[in-house]
Amino acid sequence: MNQRRRFEVTPVGAVESPLTDPAAAPKQGHEGAPDAWLVFEPRVLDALDGIRTGDRIILLTWLDRARRDVLRVHPRDDITNPEQGVFSTRSADRPNPIGLHEVEVMAIEGPSVRVRSLEAVDGTPIVDVKPVLRYPSD
Amino acid sequence: MNQRRRFEVTPVGAVESPLTDPAAAPKQGHEGAPDAWLVFEPRVLDALDGIRTGDRIILLTWLDRARRDVLRVHPRDDITNPEQGVFSTRSADRPNPIGLHEVEVMAIEGPSVRVRSLEAVDGTPIVDVKPVLRYPSD
Repeated sequence: MNQRRRFEVTPVGAVESPLTDPAAAPKQGHEGAPDAWLVFEPRVLDALDGIRTGDRIILLTWLDRARRDVLRVHPRDDITNPEQGVFSTRSADRPNPIGLHEVEVMAIEGPSVRVRSLEAVDGTPIVDVKPVLRYPSD
Repeated sequence: MNQRRRFEVTPVGAVESPLTDPAAAPKQGHEGAPDAWLVFEPRVLDALDGIRTGDRIILLTWLDRARRDVLRVHPRDDITNPEQGVFSTRSADRPNPIGLHEVEVMAIEGPSVRVRSLEAVDGTPIVDVKPVLRYPSD
């Protein structure tokens, strides 16, 4: 099980968003989140080649304000919802607080990618980007 | 941009699979991958509460054999495919080698969750589990 192993995540960029208060952030992008810029570091720009306006991508972020010792939550922070394990919820609080966000690319300008309706707050570290897997061409 | 920040991923379990050779692993689960066990560490078992047989979940793994300095690849390791940036592909080689796998839960036995058609090799560290987000109840 290699319980004692550790791996190091090195952010490849950061979110630039008008959203600054995590408490005010919508729980999911389609609940009124603002558009945002993904600003990538110069050293990884080659990795963006092939991403185009109109693409849907999966953005992985590191939710650096999350609590990593939380294993059970009331879904959607509503205490009238029965507690559940975090692996069956989208809680930011979880042992490895990686955020998954499916977003549409609106524009690409050098190291910056504009995306629609992102629920991550300003400054959130970007960990990875992947194509959405729903098309036979993947 | 916080280029110098680092975050530590602590595996919460590991994959047990008959798949041992990464070179023989299918590129995607639906291309003939075997069923596998996800074996979680005792300290995170509370986080599994709410996951049930029949659920579709998103498994996040750490692809610990990947090369992290690769930014461009020939998709699907086929050199007749033009090179693309890794962010527009499912390449395991990428700056932060996190694997995303959508799988169906077949059984749950204590700390072990049986899943259908997983393309990760035996011993792959598990980083996180999330619900699939396609239903209004999420």
